[in-house]
Amino acid sequence: MDNQIVDEDDINSCVVNIYPLRGYYFGSKDAVLPKHHTYFDQLQKLKSNYSTNGMRVCVEAVMLVELLKQPHLLVLQMRNSFFKLPGGRLRLGESEIEGLKRKLSNKLSYNGNGVDDNWEVGECLGTWWRPDFETSLCPFLPPHVKSPKECLKLFLVKLPMNKSFIVPKNQKLLVVPIFQVHDNFKTYGQIVSEVPSLLSRFSFNMNNL
Amino acid sequence: MDNQIVDEDDINSCVVNIYPLRGYYFGSKDAVLPKHHTYFDQLQKLKSNYSTNGMRVCVEAVMLVELLKQPHLLVLQMRNSFFKLPGGRLRLGESEIEGLKRKLSNKLSYNGNGVDDNWEVGECLGTWWRPDFETSLCPFLPPHVKSPKECLKLFLVKLPMNKSFIVPKNQKLLVVPIFQVHDNFKTYGQIVSEVPSLLSRFSFNMNNL
Repeated sequence: MDNQIVDEDDINSCVVNIYPLRGYYFGSKDAVLPKHHTYFDQLQKLKSNYSTNGMRVCVEAVMLVELLKQPHLLVLQMRNSFFKLPGGRLRLGESEIEGLKRKLSNKLSYNGNGVDDNWEVGECLGTWWRPDFETSLCPFLPPHVKSPKECLKLFLVKLPMNKSFIVPKNQKLLVVPIFQVHDNFKTYGQIVSEVPSLLSRFSFNMNNL
Repeated sequence: MDNQIVDEDDINSCVVNIYPLRGYYFGSKDAVLPKHHTYFDQLQKLKSNYSTNGMRVCVEAVMLVELLKQPHLLVLQMRNSFFKLPGGRLRLGESEIEGLKRKLSNKLSYNGNGVDDNWEVGECLGTWWRPDFETSLCPFLPPHVKSPKECLKLFLVKLPMNKSFIVPKNQKLLVVPIFQVHDNFKTYGQIVSEVPSLLSRFSFNMNNL
């Protein structure tokens, strides 16, 4: 793609710069006690929050780094038991982008009072809906569902060349090759395993050094 | 979303207008003999084309219509046996957008000499690569694959409120609800069954009349 004349097709191409893993520092902070121990706890919380605040809106981040010339995804491993993307629930009235920055600062930076504003929230990659409390997420709002219980949005968060990630001691921030995540529902779950397809419209520029 | 003040989040929201099925006319034209009868024929063709022209580049269209307030996908059923999105292989040096317009005119319009230019090719939804002749498509170029055999790109094609689709008598253009296609690999195959997820970043405006 070097020195190529821009043509019509380039309107549609999205190039994302990703930087080598060696530019990032991974540290730890005090463990965070899990809010919900069981599926039942989680379900109760979703129900009680819904009755107070209505539909839960969550935002999560897709962050990529380069290792061995391959894009790798940053995935949180929680309590050695399951994998998720960093993010979380929005406060009432909070914008998606501000909420995601707050959640990323809270989960991946040193504890402090402020929000680390050095997160570049980019394109929305996908949206999922939870039609009812005990159903799984769908990439569309199914017909006749008038009051979905949760909405989850994924955003591409573009990392700078250098950054520190500080995660609680009882969690791990893993660097997983895209090809390992792809279609691997069993290990990574519904959302993470679809990330490679959702990213396939982008091309990655890894020649930054 | 009516009369809402544009905020930061709207930068990321993509609204796509889709129009009622009743605005479209579906007709037929002479049957087209299938180019390849068997998987073996297809494989031979892929190999011989590769040795002459290098990697095969294909483009396909995701086209949506509204029925019962739900988005529906236009899917071609070929010889009562399998489903695909309309599109096909690019000529050498042809741009993706021009090639897709040519293929759509050829496959879905009255036969004629010219290209029906009334196709609005929009966002790229995804890209797949075929690492080797007999492997399936991946949404990324796997490590160490230096000479992929095929590249497939999906584009959102935005339909006007009215249009005629004229398909060969031995094919059918089906109007399939998004929720039926979702995760339905067994019926619709790898690419079509992923379309709902790839579309989940868009919101659909169906209040056009």
